[in-house]
Amino acid sequence: MRMKAAIFKGPGMVEIGERPAPVIQEPTDAVVRVVLGCVCGSDLWYYRGESAHAVGSIGHEFIGIVEQAGAEVRGVREGDLVVAPFIYSDMSCPHCLNGSTISCPVGGNFGNGTIDGGQGEAVRVPLAGSTLVPVPGSKHPDAVLLSLLALSDVMSTGHHAAVSAGVKKGDTVAIVGDGAVGLCAVLAARRLGAERIIALSRHADRQKAAREFGATDIIEARGEEAIQAVLDLTGGIGADAALECVGTAQSIATAFAVVRPGSTVGIVGVPHGQLPFAETFFRNTGWRGGPAPARIYIPELLADVLDGVIDPGRVFDYETDLDHITDAYRAMDERRAIKSLVRVGAL
Amino acid sequence: MRMKAAIFKGPGMVEIGERPAPVIQEPTDAVVRVVLGCVCGSDLWYYRGESAHAVGSIGHEFIGIVEQAGAEVRGVREGDLVVAPFIYSDMSCPHCLNGSTISCPVGGNFGNGTIDGGQGEAVRVPLAGSTLVPVPGSKHPDAVLLSLLALSDVMSTGHHAAVSAGVKKGDTVAIVGDGAVGLCAVLAARRLGAERIIALSRHADRQKAAREFGATDIIEARGEEAIQAVLDLTGGIGADAALECVGTAQSIATAFAVVRPGSTVGIVGVPHGQLPFAETFFRNTGWRGGPAPARIYIPELLADVLDGVIDPGRVFDYETDLDHITDAYRAMDERRAIKSLVRVGAL
Repeated sequence: MRMKAAIFKGPGMVEIGERPAPVIQEPTDAVVRVVLGCVCGSDLWYYRGESAHAVGSIGHEFIGIVEQAGAEVRGVREGDLVVAPFIYSDMSCPHCLNGSTISCPVGGNFGNGTIDGGQGEAVRVPLAGSTLVPVPGSKHPDAVLLSLLALSDVMSTGHHAAVSAGVKKGDTVAIVGDGAVGLCAVLAARRLGAERIIALSRHADRQKAAREFGATDIIEARGEEAIQAVLDLTGGIGADAALECVGTAQSIATAFAVVRPGSTVGIVGVPHGQLPFAETFFRNTGWRGGPAPARIYIPELLADVLDGVIDPGRVFDYETDLDHITDAYRAMDERRAIKSLVRVGAL
Repeated sequence: MRMKAAIFKGPGMVEIGERPAPVIQEPTDAVVRVVLGCVCGSDLWYYRGESAHAVGSIGHEFIGIVEQAGAEVRGVREGDLVVAPFIYSDMSCPHCLNGSTISCPVGGNFGNGTIDGGQGEAVRVPLAGSTLVPVPGSKHPDAVLLSLLALSDVMSTGHHAAVSAGVKKGDTVAIVGDGAVGLCAVLAARRLGAERIIALSRHADRQKAAREFGATDIIEARGEEAIQAVLDLTGGIGADAALECVGTAQSIATAFAVVRPGSTVGIVGVPHGQLPFAETFFRNTGWRGGPAPARIYIPELLADVLDGVIDPGRVFDYETDLDHITDAYRAMDERRAIKSLVRVGAL
């Protein structure tokens, strides 16, 4: 049996191809038929040749239907609509029990060269019972499905930035980065009760999205000018929290400079720069963050999606099908899309 | 009027000399007659020529008696025994109200070339009502006075490391650094309910002090070997929190390597190294800390000192008087003393 899947063949080369249809290998596996997948900002790293990636199956964000569940799978059943977090994990080791599913010693990534990716017709999900989150109810509108897909990574990551920074009711929060993660961070900050949300954004379409997600102020400037603008907006005090959703030296420096003394920067952009360590020490501005423990966050975020409280699926502003996956990458690479949705299978 | 005071004249040169006796300059000033002062690990930086410092009066840790209070001083009165935090602050600006007294825009350091230091017979304390913490009761035993003096900086700083790292009841905490701050961090971790306290220490006298303060395990190794030892002690998981009380590249790297994923390193050692930023990102190990907001912590720590719950004054293992201040520096510089007490005036 073969299936269609996106195949990474090298920088700039993502093509539709064939892979062996996944089968149960361990009794804790499930095979999930993918309904919706998408392209992550981090997929662009290897697409652009900025980081290494195994040739083969790719994609780590998907929702789908459990087609087959191994004998030892508990928690999900065949026919269930499920959200897959971007990392599989056992949820029973000390790290998972402590909320750090990313560090699960038996966990791992999807679409990493050994396990199928979510940009294909089906995925073998290891540790399926502890990894997949079943979605209650049926006949969800398409917009809800998109928001459920966003929980796989992008919304969980935006939420992680806000949680890591300790965002609380009434806070003034600055968001550095207007990509899909930054926009979800705006939504997450609003959901956690932030009163004033300052989004740094230079693109009209993203500014609009940020406002729809809850941004109360938009700053178009960058660097020193952006820092001054945030300070001006906060009476010279700085924001109560900053969410760093880019990862460049400049964005990191900006995030640390716009928070008030004693506060924390929530960092989810993989850091490609150095930290202004000694300078921030004297202002007592700390840092927390990293890859999001999506599996921990999905249940609470899912409830809010189904209740209509949050609609992170609105970050998708481009869509295509699996046969045109190449276009999905190109649209994001060329910045024509904030985030590309890939429709794979029927519900 | 003249008074005796320690004078910094250049690297290696701290001498007893004379300064104008301080007088009230602003109605919010008080003049405090110093009873006890001491030498801070950070005093050694300029003593050793590792950082710049103005020639003149020095020292930022002291307790004393309010000799004269300006017309607008509220909260302390003439004759009060007071603890001075190492920074003066107004306690009414947004930063102070947010707990960041270090960033008070009208605050400042003692012994910085413009304001008297605590290693002298008297100090003019600006913003005295909001800065000085009066000590209830009288006729405190000498051991209690030493512990009150420790609240000025060293114990507040150790406490800040523990608070910044989020130490809570039942935690396993690793303390990197066995200087006076590291030892106080042990005491602070115990006070906050840590169950297992792993102190990294290579000196027999400091190991003994660490055990007396609550360390349950001592690790003599450094670097990779120390990291492995902490992992071995914690079943391969890592500590729930690490307190970084040194500030070198090696000690910072050690602190980040011994904490479990998702936890926080509390940093109070002024960082002289870089942070292993990307590596720690993928483990979700964050960092908080900086100069301690001692003024915020002193009231609660003072209550525990008076109740006999904590005795941070035991970090003083060398003592002399103001006339022999040079010896106090030498003893610490030559590592013969953990921390030098300087007896200045009668109670």
